[in-house]
Amino acid sequence: MSKYTIGVDYGTESGRAVLVDLSNGAEIATHVTPYRHGVIDEVLPGSGRKLEMDWALQHPADYIEVLTTSVPAVMKESGINPADVIGIGIDFTACTMLPIDPAGQPLCFDESLKGDPHSWVKLWKHHAAQDEADRLNEIASERGEAFQPRYGGKISSEWMVAKIWQILNEAPDIYEKTDRFVEATDWVIMQMCGELKRNQCTAGYKSIYHHREGYPSREFFKALDPRLEDLTATKLRGEIYALGSRAGGLTEHMAALMGLNEGTAVAVGNVDAHAAVPAVGVVTPGKLVMAMGTSICHMLLGEEEKEVEGMCGVVENGIIPGYYGYEAGQSAVGDIFAWFVEHGVPESVKQEADAEGISVHALLERKAAAYKPGETGLLALDWWNGNRSVLVDTNLTGLIVGFTLLTKPEEIYRTLLEATAFGTRKIVDAFHNNGVPVDVLYACGGLPQKNALLMQIYADVTGREIKVAASTQTPALGAAMFAAVAAGAQAGGYDDVVEAARHMARVREESYQPIPENAAVYDKLYTEYSRLHDYFGRGENPVMKRLKSLKEEATHSAETVVK
Amino acid sequence: MSKYTIGVDYGTESGRAVLVDLSNGAEIATHVTPYRHGVIDEVLPGSGRKLEMDWALQHPADYIEVLTTSVPAVMKESGINPADVIGIGIDFTACTMLPIDPAGQPLCFDESLKGDPHSWVKLWKHHAAQDEADRLNEIASERGEAFQPRYGGKISSEWMVAKIWQILNEAPDIYEKTDRFVEATDWVIMQMCGELKRNQCTAGYKSIYHHREGYPSREFFKALDPRLEDLTATKLRGEIYALGSRAGGLTEHMAALMGLNEGTAVAVGNVDAHAAVPAVGVVTPGKLVMAMGTSICHMLLGEEEKEVEGMCGVVENGIIPGYYGYEAGQSAVGDIFAWFVEHGVPESVKQEADAEGISVHALLERKAAAYKPGETGLLALDWWNGNRSVLVDTNLTGLIVGFTLLTKPEEIYRTLLEATAFGTRKIVDAFHNNGVPVDVLYACGGLPQKNALLMQIYADVTGREIKVAASTQTPALGAAMFAAVAAGAQAGGYDDVVEAARHMARVREESYQPIPENAAVYDKLYTEYSRLHDYFGRGENPVMKRLKSLKEEATHSAETVVK
Repeated sequence: MSKYTIGVDYGTESGRAVLVDLSNGAEIATHVTPYRHGVIDEVLPGSGRKLEMDWALQHPADYIEVLTTSVPAVMKESGINPADVIGIGIDFTACTMLPIDPAGQPLCFDESLKGDPHSWVKLWKHHAAQDEADRLNEIASERGEAFQPRYGGKISSEWMVAKIWQILNEAPDIYEKTDRFVEATDWVIMQMCGELKRNQCTAGYKSIYHHREGYPSREFFKALDPRLEDLTATKLRGEIYALGSRAGGLTEHMAALMGLNEGTAVAVGNVDAHAAVPAVGVVTPGKLVMAMGTSICHMLLGEEEKEVEGMCGVVENGIIPGYYGYEAGQSAVGDIFAWFVEHGVPESVKQEADAEGISVHALLERKAAAYKPGETGLLALDWWNGNRSVLVDTNLTGLIVGFTLLTKPEEIYRTLLEATAFGTRKIVDAFHNNGVPVDVLYACGGLPQKNALLMQIYADVTGREIKVAASTQTPALGAAMFAAVAAGAQAGGYDDVVEAARHMARVREESYQPIPENAAVYDKLYTEYSRLHDYFGRGENPVMKRLKSLKEEATHSAETVVK
Repeated sequence: MSKYTIGVDYGTESGRAVLVDLSNGAEIATHVTPYRHGVIDEVLPGSGRKLEMDWALQHPADYIEVLTTSVPAVMKESGINPADVIGIGIDFTACTMLPIDPAGQPLCFDESLKGDPHSWVKLWKHHAAQDEADRLNEIASERGEAFQPRYGGKISSEWMVAKIWQILNEAPDIYEKTDRFVEATDWVIMQMCGELKRNQCTAGYKSIYHHREGYPSREFFKALDPRLEDLTATKLRGEIYALGSRAGGLTEHMAALMGLNEGTAVAVGNVDAHAAVPAVGVVTPGKLVMAMGTSICHMLLGEEEKEVEGMCGVVENGIIPGYYGYEAGQSAVGDIFAWFVEHGVPESVKQEADAEGISVHALLERKAAAYKPGETGLLALDWWNGNRSVLVDTNLTGLIVGFTLLTKPEEIYRTLLEATAFGTRKIVDAFHNNGVPVDVLYACGGLPQKNALLMQIYADVTGREIKVAASTQTPALGAAMFAAVAAGAQAGGYDDVVEAARHMARVREESYQPIPENAAVYDKLYTEYSRLHDYFGRGENPVMKRLKSLKEEATHSAETVVK
């Protein structure tokens, strides 16, 4: 008799439940529930209060609706007996956080507080805490805080402490009334099984928590703001559990709403990209997993804690228990290709694509594939949205060199694909040359599914084989694996995620192998890329920042004129 | 009673006759005759022989047809009495050259020779003599030839000696049968008045002729090829006349064909861009004339012969008698904007332009005009077709830096306009800082007519007033002025071109003045431009050339595969 678990993937716009067969990882049923309130970035629900620029909130009730809608839907579609569903796990965007009261209720559920935007969920891409992040990094540098190298030298404005500090600065009463600040992933688990059990992944990557050393010191938080001195003992209190731990059993109330049995094992929370790692079968070092979409998140396991330039974070047990989980990233990849298709492709190409009934992307890919490496004469720096790794600098911008009067759109398109591949090679080299070996690449997410040219270029540029996930829903599949671990082998699940991955993870049979003559040309182009990368990215010529300053001055003076 | 002259402008595709009133420069009548054979770059007329890549020929009979069609047409349209037309002058593309026999007949008129492409007119943009030009420059450098600094260090493959040498190398029998090699402008004058009188402008700018020192030495030509030792005394022989000199009177035969009186004064030949200088009223130093179209030709008068980096040439009396005529240029300007409109503008912009019934250029200009200097955050190097001045390097390519995911087509368009303005400022600075002052700019040609934003940017970037030609036919107007000088004051013309310009040249009443706050921002952007200009253009990072080499290798290997 087969056993099953459910993985629920919480994205930016919707949540998706996937029912998985534990014997082979087969995805039996899938259901998506769009968030009723979506991303709240203009006006607050109810009060209609207008939000400032860079704000991005969510409604916690939307997360529960995913559980009570999509889980019954996959149960119904599959016809599986609830007794055979032995566990449920989730993965989430992060750091997506909220303030709760002592009963675990979001402060935005309180009639007297819901008019204050700070009582709501702050989505990962809420960018209004940049001042706090800048100040935090300054103070950490002045104090020589030991955590800095673990985060590539910089704590992001997207992360927990910056967001909490913003609340304290702008809404001290909300801060005061908060019993605890929690990751949304932990809050949803708490709703299912009644207890707050924080997880090691978000604690490590987003809340500066170290497996052995704990949070940064009281002195550090005091240096930020005396009112934050006790933060970690009070509003961030709570034990932190390893991934795959059983957070508890489904409550009677939630089991009824979800169509599952009371007491069904619930795994502690997790993060989307990180949950994808075991879902492609990666549970040991040497294998770099790329979650490829609008951006790329790179994840890698290591035996030791090494300092690697520009990584987003290294967290012991942060991805797979027993290993150091390394994370790095490129802040724009698919986004760059989409920008080009929207803004840089002439009518003639659009008409040609329409005539053939294919997308502009598909037509450009076919045309670009007719070129050999080097044949465009173009080279780009892929910094349309700054550089996350290895330079950690949001103020860098994109560059293309090599234009002639004969340059064609498909040549620019190919150059942009190549530039993002060079960006990934920078990250691969940074790991590999600093004691965290990278032998083979694994790709998951939206981009690898359709873009064969892109994947071949990545193989050629990195000189490494690339295996592609068989599942298009790897985060949910990963969450289902951790649910199987939380249920345990005795219940028909697995002892650990390594076992779960051995049975449930799959990659496609065909992989991308580097073509030696392409790799040889790309080695030469990468030398040129690296030289421009260092010239523009490491301060020799800070022209990109000066252009950005001039742009800000001009925009500001333009606004002044309008007023 | 008014007197008149006719200026005939020989362009690349057609010839244009303009009948001008000498009292005020009014253009009374205009007529255009397209060349019957156009640009011959695929097959030879008659034999149908296929031409190699980079060849560009013309048919000399087409030039005569302009005289016998367009001159009678303007006479008829204006109703002017031929007795009141006291002179005719022409201007031409250059170096456009041909081999002639002792009677002055083109060798391609000879039935036995016309099957050889080398017997035809080689148009200015015939680019098949690059090997000869490279070798010539090498030998000149080895020998330390004194003429090199006068031509920015490099003699072009488009010029007379490279083209002659190609004929010698590839068709020694044609070379042997050639009595003289002549500029087409001199040949047309010869047809009108029966005598070959070479002009100082093409001799100076295209044939390495110096007013006092003459041609390069026999030793130099011998070093090129022993068979060339006597070139200047034989096949380039012929006295060289100042601009505005009377070449002779119209022959009875040609006068009849053209509808003018026998003996009408004919001025010596001239070059299109150079003839435009007096036509905008520039006959003294300090005023830089820009002939702005697909590219820009910059012309300036000086009191002394100075070494200015990257100029195309300095020729005493080469533009206006009594002054050193300096020439520099940008190899692509309007061509870059046209490339962008064709290859880089999305369907949505095209549809918006169509809906408004305006051109894409016009729509982009309006959108780009809404930005302040610096507001795009972008900066470009305008080297889509290499860099003519001041770097003299055809292997440089274009660059854009500053892209973000929000970059819009109109921002790129504005950036390209600005980049060409920075390119012009490099040339202005090179002259001004090396003892050839530039106080004010004059613009003529196609671009200044419609592009107000472009002209304002040029004023802001160069920090100088720009006056715009009132005439859209400045080369022909200039040719008519020199015709008035050839006729002389006694006949109702003028003593010299200064007098002619004083009466006949006009600029528009409104000029473009630099806006101080724009100029201040552009000074900062120009500093950034200059740094990138030097980094990429002066050898610190020769990435553009390496990309070009890789492109050539890839193209070559792609061709090998096809074979």
